[in-house]
Amino acid sequence: MSDLPIVNIGICGLGTVGQGVWKHITRSKPKLESRLGARLVLKRASVRNLAKKRGVRVGPSRLTTDPMAVATDPGIQIVCELIGGTTLAKEITLAALRLGKTVVSANKALVCDHGPEIFAAAREHGGHYFFEASVAGGIPIIKALREGLVANRFGRIYGILNGTCNYILTRMERESLSYPVILKEAKALGYAEADEALDVEGWDTAHKASIITYLAHGTWVPTKAMGVAGITQIAQADIQFAREHNLAIKLLAVIERDLKTDELAVSVAPTLLSRETALANVNDVYNGVSVSGDVVGETVYIGRGAGQDATASAVISDIVDAIALLLRGNAALPEPVDHDCPRRLPERSVSRYYLRLDVKDEPGVLSKISAATARFKVSIASVQQTASSRKGTATLMLTTHLTNEKAILSAVTQLRRLAGVLGAPLLMRIAAFEDA
Amino acid sequence: MSDLPIVNIGICGLGTVGQGVWKHITRSKPKLESRLGARLVLKRASVRNLAKKRGVRVGPSRLTTDPMAVATDPGIQIVCELIGGTTLAKEITLAALRLGKTVVSANKALVCDHGPEIFAAAREHGGHYFFEASVAGGIPIIKALREGLVANRFGRIYGILNGTCNYILTRMERESLSYPVILKEAKALGYAEADEALDVEGWDTAHKASIITYLAHGTWVPTKAMGVAGITQIAQADIQFAREHNLAIKLLAVIERDLKTDELAVSVAPTLLSRETALANVNDVYNGVSVSGDVVGETVYIGRGAGQDATASAVISDIVDAIALLLRGNAALPEPVDHDCPRRLPERSVSRYYLRLDVKDEPGVLSKISAATARFKVSIASVQQTASSRKGTATLMLTTHLTNEKAILSAVTQLRRLAGVLGAPLLMRIAAFEDA
Repeated sequence: MSDLPIVNIGICGLGTVGQGVWKHITRSKPKLESRLGARLVLKRASVRNLAKKRGVRVGPSRLTTDPMAVATDPGIQIVCELIGGTTLAKEITLAALRLGKTVVSANKALVCDHGPEIFAAAREHGGHYFFEASVAGGIPIIKALREGLVANRFGRIYGILNGTCNYILTRMERESLSYPVILKEAKALGYAEADEALDVEGWDTAHKASIITYLAHGTWVPTKAMGVAGITQIAQADIQFAREHNLAIKLLAVIERDLKTDELAVSVAPTLLSRETALANVNDVYNGVSVSGDVVGETVYIGRGAGQDATASAVISDIVDAIALLLRGNAALPEPVDHDCPRRLPERSVSRYYLRLDVKDEPGVLSKISAATARFKVSIASVQQTASSRKGTATLMLTTHLTNEKAILSAVTQLRRLAGVLGAPLLMRIAAFEDA
Repeated sequence: MSDLPIVNIGICGLGTVGQGVWKHITRSKPKLESRLGARLVLKRASVRNLAKKRGVRVGPSRLTTDPMAVATDPGIQIVCELIGGTTLAKEITLAALRLGKTVVSANKALVCDHGPEIFAAAREHGGHYFFEASVAGGIPIIKALREGLVANRFGRIYGILNGTCNYILTRMERESLSYPVILKEAKALGYAEADEALDVEGWDTAHKASIITYLAHGTWVPTKAMGVAGITQIAQADIQFAREHNLAIKLLAVIERDLKTDELAVSVAPTLLSRETALANVNDVYNGVSVSGDVVGETVYIGRGAGQDATASAVISDIVDAIALLLRGNAALPEPVDHDCPRRLPERSVSRYYLRLDVKDEPGVLSKISAATARFKVSIASVQQTASSRKGTATLMLTTHLTNEKAILSAVTQLRRLAGVLGAPLLMRIAAFEDA
């Protein structure tokens, strides 16, 4: 082995994922080295606390508390940025790229917020930036979009991209328990963060949707330009309605592009999905992505979206790609072409909708509600009423015929103002993706 | 565009897939050219009949009846071998590779029968051989195995790899019609070949299993060394049994490796699969592959396995990868390391089994059957009897407790010889893959 070229790898951040990367590279080194024709050296890693006990054994001489020292170490060719956040992570990423190094990252927020600047730095200095692990962990979805499906234009991509939300929704469905109860248990089991907002309010999904949109369409849609809703308002009444109608509720990122007009629409919202679709059957912490290409048709990818090992698998795949490039000529991957495309206007987004309203249980409420929806030409397809736990109130579940988003949103605004309607209505799209 | 490098592509075989490749490259040329930074020229194509009308317009000066002239054309860098078969296809592949060209292929039989020789020719002369389209058409499964999941060892890979069989099984399940009736319709609709044997007897699936085995484990298992069974014996009695037990019958390639002992087992057979698995819900002409890696866990890939467009999508993806390599340094992809590994002995393959027997409807038959299975220590878990269409006969459906393959096969051999048993029993594994 002694005459093989040596590739030195530096790990910034030896947390859960960093330890996974260290562990699995160490374990599969002989195989990786024989396939790559190079010696892999895990040269240095940065940590916040040198004294902390870790699940992997790393000699003290290889540890530092300074991630910038790892990122700029002249002996290190490949830097894994696994510290997260968008401040220090950005600094070390740019520093490494400006030295012509290759950076491998699992940091979706960083790609999402500073992608163009990072990609430009890589291009300018002849390095590369890899981020397979930032979306859908162990599923090689970025590689599929960039390479495997390169012949396609993508009319629709939709996915379950947040394991925490999917875990909560799956358990709500299986155990008929309320959202707060399951959330509490998910936290206790480590399936939800102590501060769960980023996950359950849809922002984590939105970050990933932004990255997928860029890869598929070459345009950046910032999360604040998307409609983003989370799962916090989902109640057992909704879950039961879904079950009775052979539907499943999934928090979906939906990226739709009209291949004729080029209009693009990106949204994150809980959605009612036919049980016939593959994604309706993706449960627990699993992620799933459905990609409809104009050449290939629909392809679906399912796997663990997060966790030490799934994420490490993706990071190591990027490291191997990076080494192959490094050793054999520094070939650049074809990158999507940056360009703007028009956003689809809400009045051109058409769907069936589900609407849950808590109302005062008194005569005339339904007639007021139907009058309000009729004003916006929203046509009701079905009405179902169940008892509410609060005395004197009832829960109404409506579905609409096909209606456009502007009309339904206007109708909902109107409904909120009605005297008999209590609290905010819950609105969900009933997806007809099985027709794709 | 005039100062961009030019890449000339030759297409050997302008049949269904060849025309798809020609059509979609022509259509997406601007996008592909801007991403690659090169001009793509479809320089020549070979056909069998110059006079034949085709779905794509190709100037007569670009057509030839001599595929070897395309493959050895000094101006052509990338040769697509889409003529099929293993004789002429092999000659033109080797001729192109010996000239240092890159060959892109959809030819599973060729990869399977002559893979080592072809890969060696590519290596020796500095060219490349790409074959994403040979397995599961539009699903980028080869890329996933070689690159996306490179950190993993694969304990189990199983897949639905033949669209014709899956289409027939799906329709048998939905419409409760017999195999011969559905097969006839499938032929009329073009979903089955006039000579269907290669598909329905499992050999097409076996070819793909051999390729996946090589990519995942670096070892060639020829199809004749696998147990291969097809779907021709599946009857409505089996389909109904499956439905009643929340199972689906799928023709599966199963590639299992014991990560401790290294033992490998590859088989193709109709299998009873829990409806809870993603693949049990992959229907019609769709293919699906489940890949369990020791790092990433289970990932699943679903998409169209064949057809003009899905296959063209995969071929074009390979062409783009090939061009990226060509333009930017000729980086070689890491290849699996060729090595032998022990085959798992039948007595170490353990599963639950389903067994259907047509028997004479007379007293004592069941006792003879249970005595015969008991001799081989095969323990019966359930027995179900249904009326048979033939007078004086009945159909018995047995399931076993966990038993090893050697025992069950010996028991079946014994059962065939029993006086009361009519015809050959149908044996299917009841997979417990959901426990993976």
